[in-house]
Amino acid sequence: LMVMDPDNLSVVLHSLKDLRLEQRPIPEPGPNDVLLRMHSVGICGSDVHYWQNGRIGDFVVTKPMVLGHEASGTVVKVGSAVKTCRLVRRIHVHGRVLQNGRYNLSPTIFFCATPPDDGNLSRYYIHSANFCYKLPDNVTFEEGALIEPLSVGIHACRRAGVTLGSIVLICGAGPIGLVSLLVAKAMGASKVVITDLSQERLSMAKKLGADYAVTITKGNAPQALAKNVADMLGAPPQITIECTGVESSIQTAIYATQSGGVVVLVGLGAEMATIPLVNAAVREIDIRGVFRYCNTWPMAIAMLASGKVNVKPLAFETTKQGLGIKVMIKCDKNDQNP
Amino acid sequence: LMVMDPDNLSVVLHSLKDLRLEQRPIPEPGPNDVLLRMHSVGICGSDVHYWQNGRIGDFVVTKPMVLGHEASGTVVKVGSAVKTCRLVRRIHVHGRVLQNGRYNLSPTIFFCATPPDDGNLSRYYIHSANFCYKLPDNVTFEEGALIEPLSVGIHACRRAGVTLGSIVLICGAGPIGLVSLLVAKAMGASKVVITDLSQERLSMAKKLGADYAVTITKGNAPQALAKNVADMLGAPPQITIECTGVESSIQTAIYATQSGGVVVLVGLGAEMATIPLVNAAVREIDIRGVFRYCNTWPMAIAMLASGKVNVKPLAFETTKQGLGIKVMIKCDKNDQNP
Amino acid sequence: LMVMDPDNLSVVLHSLKDLRLEQRPIPEPGPNDVLLRMHSVGICGSDVHYWQNGRIGDFVVTKPMVLGHEASGTVVKVGSAVKTCRLVRRIHVHGRVLQNGRYNLSPTIFFCATPPDDGNLSRYYIHSANFCYKLPDNVTFEEGALIEPLSVGIHACRRAGVTLGSIVLICGAGPIGLVSLLVAKAMGASKVVITDLSQERLSMAKKLGADYAVTITKGNAPQALAKNVADMLGAPPQITIECTGVESSIQTAIYATQSGGVVVLVGLGAEMATIPLVNAAVREIDIRGVFRYCNTWPMAIAMLASGKVNVKPLAFETTKQGLGIKVMIKCDKNDQNP
Amino acid sequence: LMVMDPDNLSVVLHSLKDLRLEQRPIPEPGPNDVLLRMHSVGICGSDVHYWQNGRIGDFVVTKPMVLGHEASGTVVKVGSAVKTCRLVRRIHVHGRVLQNGRYNLSPTIFFCATPPDDGNLSRYYIHSANFCYKLPDNVTFEEGALIEPLSVGIHACRRAGVTLGSIVLICGAGPIGLVSLLVAKAMGASKVVITDLSQERLSMAKKLGADYAVTITKGNAPQALAKNVADMLGAPPQITIECTGVESSIQTAIYATQSGGVVVLVGLGAEMATIPLVNAAVREIDIRGVFRYCNTWPMAIAMLASGKVNVKPLAFETTKQGLGIKVMIKCDKNDQNP
Ligand SMILES: NC(=O)c1ccc[n+]([C@@H]2O[C@H](COP(=O)([O-])OP(=O)(O)OC[C@H]3O[C@@H](n4cnc5c(N)ncnc54)[C@H](O)[C@@H]3O)[C@@H](O)[C@H]2O)c1
Ligand SMILES: NC(=O)c1ccc[n+]([C@@H]2O[C@H](COP(=O)([O-])OP(=O)(O)OC[C@H]3O[C@@H](n4cnc5c(N)ncnc54)[C@H](O)[C@@H]3O)[C@@H](O)[C@H]2O)c1
Ligand SMILES: NC(=O)c1ccc[n+]([C@@H]2O[C@H](COP(=O)([O-])OP(=O)(O)OC[C@H]3O[C@@H](n4cnc5c(N)ncnc54)[C@H](O)[C@@H]3O)[C@@H](O)[C@H]2O)c1
Ligand SMILES: NC(=O)c1ccc[n+]([C@@H]2O[C@H](COP(=O)([O-])OP(=O)(O)OC[C@H]3O[C@@H](n4cnc5c(N)ncnc54)[C@H](O)[C@@H]3O)[C@@H](O)[C@H]2O)c1
Ligand SMILES: [Zn+2]
Ligand SMILES: [Zn+2]
Ligand SMILES: [Zn+2]
Ligand SMILES: [Zn+2]
Repeated sequence: LMVMDPDNLSVVLHSLKDLRLEQRPIPEPGPNDVLLRMHSVGICGSDVHYWQNGRIGDFVVTKPMVLGHEASGTVVKVGSAVKTCRLVRRIHVHGRVLQNGRYNLSPTIFFCATPPDDGNLSRYYIHSANFCYKLPDNVTFEEGALIEPLSVGIHACRRAGVTLGSIVLICGAGPIGLVSLLVAKAMGASKVVITDLSQERLSMAKKLGADYAVTITKGNAPQALAKNVADMLGAPPQITIECTGVESSIQTAIYATQSGGVVVLVGLGAEMATIPLVNAAVREIDIRGVFRYCNTWPMAIAMLASGKVNVKPLAFETTKQGLGIKVMIKCDKNDQNP
Repeated sequence: LMVMDPDNLSVVLHSLKDLRLEQRPIPEPGPNDVLLRMHSVGICGSDVHYWQNGRIGDFVVTKPMVLGHEASGTVVKVGSAVKTCRLVRRIHVHGRVLQNGRYNLSPTIFFCATPPDDGNLSRYYIHSANFCYKLPDNVTFEEGALIEPLSVGIHACRRAGVTLGSIVLICGAGPIGLVSLLVAKAMGASKVVITDLSQERLSMAKKLGADYAVTITKGNAPQALAKNVADMLGAPPQITIECTGVESSIQTAIYATQSGGVVVLVGLGAEMATIPLVNAAVREIDIRGVFRYCNTWPMAIAMLASGKVNVKPLAFETTKQGLGIKVMIKCDKNDQNP
Repeated sequence: LMVMDPDNLSVVLHSLKDLRLEQRPIPEPGPNDVLLRMHSVGICGSDVHYWQNGRIGDFVVTKPMVLGHEASGTVVKVGSAVKTCRLVRRIHVHGRVLQNGRYNLSPTIFFCATPPDDGNLSRYYIHSANFCYKLPDNVTFEEGALIEPLSVGIHACRRAGVTLGSIVLICGAGPIGLVSLLVAKAMGASKVVITDLSQERLSMAKKLGADYAVTITKGNAPQALAKNVADMLGAPPQITIECTGVESSIQTAIYATQSGGVVVLVGLGAEMATIPLVNAAVREIDIRGVFRYCNTWPMAIAMLASGKVNVKPLAFETTKQGLGIKVMIKCDKNDQNP
Repeated sequence: LMVMDPDNLSVVLHSLKDLRLEQRPIPEPGPNDVLLRMHSVGICGSDVHYWQNGRIGDFVVTKPMVLGHEASGTVVKVGSAVKTCRLVRRIHVHGRVLQNGRYNLSPTIFFCATPPDDGNLSRYYIHSANFCYKLPDNVTFEEGALIEPLSVGIHACRRAGVTLGSIVLICGAGPIGLVSLLVAKAMGASKVVITDLSQERLSMAKKLGADYAVTITKGNAPQALAKNVADMLGAPPQITIECTGVESSIQTAIYATQSGGVVVLVGLGAEMATIPLVNAAVREIDIRGVFRYCNTWPMAIAMLASGKVNVKPLAFETTKQGLGIKVMIKCDKNDQNP
């Protein structure tokens, strides 16, 4: 199909704090695979976490692993049995393994850059053709790479039941809090309050559509914060999306949410947490976890293509001014555009 | 509280085609009521239908009835037991009878301008204080009056399960089709196709956000139309909201909808309809009716206040240019503003 | 594994009314298949329909097809790649193609005895190992074969939302109406009314747990029948499961169901049906189709094993007395037990 | 209507540990009330708790309060405006305040024997006619009194989504665990495992239909227990209903439940609890509280009348043999039958 570039520079984590940039052979696609020339790969908190800690929970880096899972690229070679992908030019890749169902909960799922599965922060990458999605022409590679974190926001808002007129509290304005904000607004939320320790992140949140921002100080009592939020809104939020993983913020989430409402746990902190469980129980506040996402790609692509969700400010436009919050690596030597 | 205007001009339908403009005494609010000075009242298809036909289904005009149920006004007097409404200035009124549940299905509901219940197309009107909603300052009286038809769209989209990324077909671009369009978009629908016989109505639909418009000609075969819609979208719509009540359009709705999808019936036509029921059954397309709405006011007000839904083009801005599709009567002699 | 019997007598429908009993070679399982010695195969209305009419809707018998899809048997040979099935002795087979999702709606599903796919009314049959379910020791082959029609009842009751205390009307007491009855009761329905033309079938229904039985006469007006049912129950049923496909019975189903309730269409009749659609719409009665079933095998096996559902009377116990309604063919020469 | 008995002996809690049996005047029903001669009143854990501790959470006994809320009796006098109740003979009473919606979460609900609202452990009691339910003739007064605790089980199983074939773990075999067991079985659960410290309570549970019973010892590690349960069932339960309120049992509930499953919190323990929240979050186990119940009476009565749920062993049959777990007070001097 084309003369292959001999360069497959890859970002490999060998073990705790031992990150190396090394050449790997360009792999050959199996009958149902495609070979991708990677274009944009975002750096996720988990990539940094594996690098700095060598593990996340039960997932331990025991042998060298390529990092990266927020990615987009171009099909450059297709396996012998692949039909539908032949004309695809830009695609997005991720670890989707099943068409339907809650595949994110499968213990045997392949997931990029989660030990022992290699990620795609490299020049070339092999992926199953069935799990590649064509990006429409009006969606950039960077936006394509942002589908992965955006999917977490979609899954969180879907699990929360955000709909027209929902009043939502989001705890934490990191990348995950911000994509949740974008999605909540696109689903029709009428008022979104967001919290963070950082004034800068809250400014970004306001830019992205948050109606109210609350600056948290370490000493804030959860119950007092909950009252502030209710006063600000005129009523307690029906839905809280917790995106910090911090115990006191989870407590705030429970106290703040309206009776009969929902707290979605996206943030992941210490294994054991002490929380006001009786308060949640007697007010019938559902506590629902989120683990990554499932069946979000078509929805995410539809949203990006229709312009309903604008993820660009997360990545590049603003990085030039030092405001971006998502580092985006360009893997293609010949194309450094978004 | 205030010196009362002796004028309570009211639009009264005495019987089939016998519509009279007459003075009625200004009523005195009971202990739990408020007296409203009406400001804007929209004319609904059903008002016209009662006037022209004297009945809708089993509801027959047997004694004089005031028309009008899409309404907003100002509280000018409160009953002795009313506490919460005292400071309310602008409110919206409708026939809500219960806080929760599917009260729209109650056979004993009070509903304005449905025999035998009087409507509010008059200078003054008595309403139960509990069922009055305060309009925020940035919502006009005309927008307030449009909450009623907007509620039909909210209820329809909610019953349909419209959410982020939904692909929706709307049959009919009358007022009801158009509010359904506005709400579907606000709930995150990524693509909306709308149909109508009238080119003008489709132009309005495009202006309000429809992605595609299909002009229907009387002879169009439902199955062929369904195929057109699928070709246009690249896939059949997951949701169809039928807003014409016309039999051939209901047939189109069923044929067009994706297997496992939903057809919502808002349009009301002949009592008996001949439809491709086996096609619907074996493709598990749910057929869900809509009768008015329930529990929509808070959501509608939130949407108007936050600017998520712009209903203004429906009523007045465009009427000046002959494009408006909703006639809005000004009941207040001293305030003819929107 | 064992010496193979040269006899693979099969029931083959060559074309309309041309049914032949013929020997076919015993097939060899592919790597992921198993070879089954069939034990019990029930005769479904659709088998009879293909035989008598040569087609069902768009499915036309254009080449010889083995009949039968309600089946159970024993694994006698396994493909080279099959691991999990090795110790399985009794299994049930059907056309399941995907683990999750509404696979029954897939247009490319393989389904036994639906043209062009061969059924399993034969001595031996090849099936994909992944779609075989082990029957517990306390479940007979006949019960195993009845899992297929039982699945239709499970799917119907699940789509209907039957739960503790539900009041249910079932139209038609054929095999499908009766399995729906069994499942509705097992899900906690407190009162079930069933209708049929045949007194005998209604007696069987009473034996299986129906609380009330209504004998239908051809001339009965749907609205009058609906009223009878409501009078009998003290209130209209919340759920109606239509299992006749007859137009007048579908009309009865709609008129009879409580506002806000559900009509499930299992029966399949003429392509076009004339129904009181406005009545259904304004009373917000959801009309939900049922096409076969999905993800029902584990639930069905659990129910049979725990004794929660007793399907035995459908097949054999009563046939001896001429009361059975499901003909069950014994394919195994050496084992004619249930 | 009848000559009134001057005796209205009532069980009044004056303050912490100060319980008195005293005569109170027989009250006169208001226009919309009925006067009941109480028959059977069950003793709830909360009655004992108020007596022993003077409070439950924020609810503090600050003035004398009649105990009792699990009750049934007979209408002996009706208010002037009461129509529908006139012919009612036996009824059940509870604090229901609204027809629909999640009224149990209303902060202003009237609830018997929760400060400051008087209960009905007395000879006579006034109740709103709208919230009285007629007991069918085949339901005894004792069964009627058990509708209240049964309602907790219904609400819990409904919130859990128990359905045909569900595999359920119930933690705790007190009255609440046992009613949850009865309801889960009636909703179609195929396997129910129940735990308790007490061998006697587990025997009762087995008698009531539990498939497996696990005796807990104080030192048991939650994760080990979870594994035991999964081994016993062949797979982890999809649903766990926690009915102890004990922290270690809540931990077990989370560890034991299948990914994507539900833990329902019925038991109420210490305000703050330390739980494996990340485990719950990444396995997307929904944690749903239960506060009393809503809209359960019609369902409960239907179940009792149809014999689907047998609550009798909870109260009287077995008390004679010292096995009963619910003390039932007979308030009517002239009728001490069940
Ligand atoms: N469940 C999943 O599938 C999933 C997926 C991705 C990320 N995550 C988790 O989501 C969380 C957020 O991810 P991220 O990439 O945005 O991380 P991040 O660290 O960039 O953002 C977290 C933000 O929370 C703020 N914060 C800290 N303490 C706070 C407090 N008490 N109140 C309010 N804000 C506070 C921080 O200032 C920071 O801006 C992390 O815990 C991550 O592990 C979960
Ligand atoms: N269910 C309810 O609670 C409820 C409430 C309000 C209105 N309605 C019903 O909704 C329907 C719409 O109301 P409206 O006020 O918009 O009425 P309308 O008459 O103004 O609009 C109907 C539109 O459908 C178009 N139309 C007619 N035949 C068509 C076809 N074959 N294909 C496509 N378009 C076609 C017409 O050109 C018209 O623009 C009416 O049937 C009305 O009775 C129902
Ligand atoms: N949707 C699906 O996936 C699916 C699957 C299996 C069967 N089916 C359909 O379900 C229906 C029932 O199947 P079956 O095998 O029980 O068929 P059947 O013919 O044995 O039973 C139908 C019963 O309906 C009775 N009946 C006829 N007219 C009636 C009326 N007006 N009122 C009341 N009862 C009436 C008949 O006396 C008969 O007992 C058929 O239409 C069949 O095609 C659908
Ligand atoms: N949420 C509500 O609306 C509601 C309503 C009623 C009762 N409750 C609560 O439900 C709980 C149960 O009520 P009850 O009346 O059955 O109480 P109970 O005290 O009679 O029963 C609790 C049972 O749990 C057992 N137990 C204790 N520790 C255990 C452990 N570690 N593992 C397993 N079993 C253990 C005890 O032996 C006892 O049999 C209480 O906490 C009560 O406050 C809640
Ligand atoms: Zn990530
Ligand atoms: Zn109207
Ligand atoms: Zn069949
Ligand atoms: Zn109690």
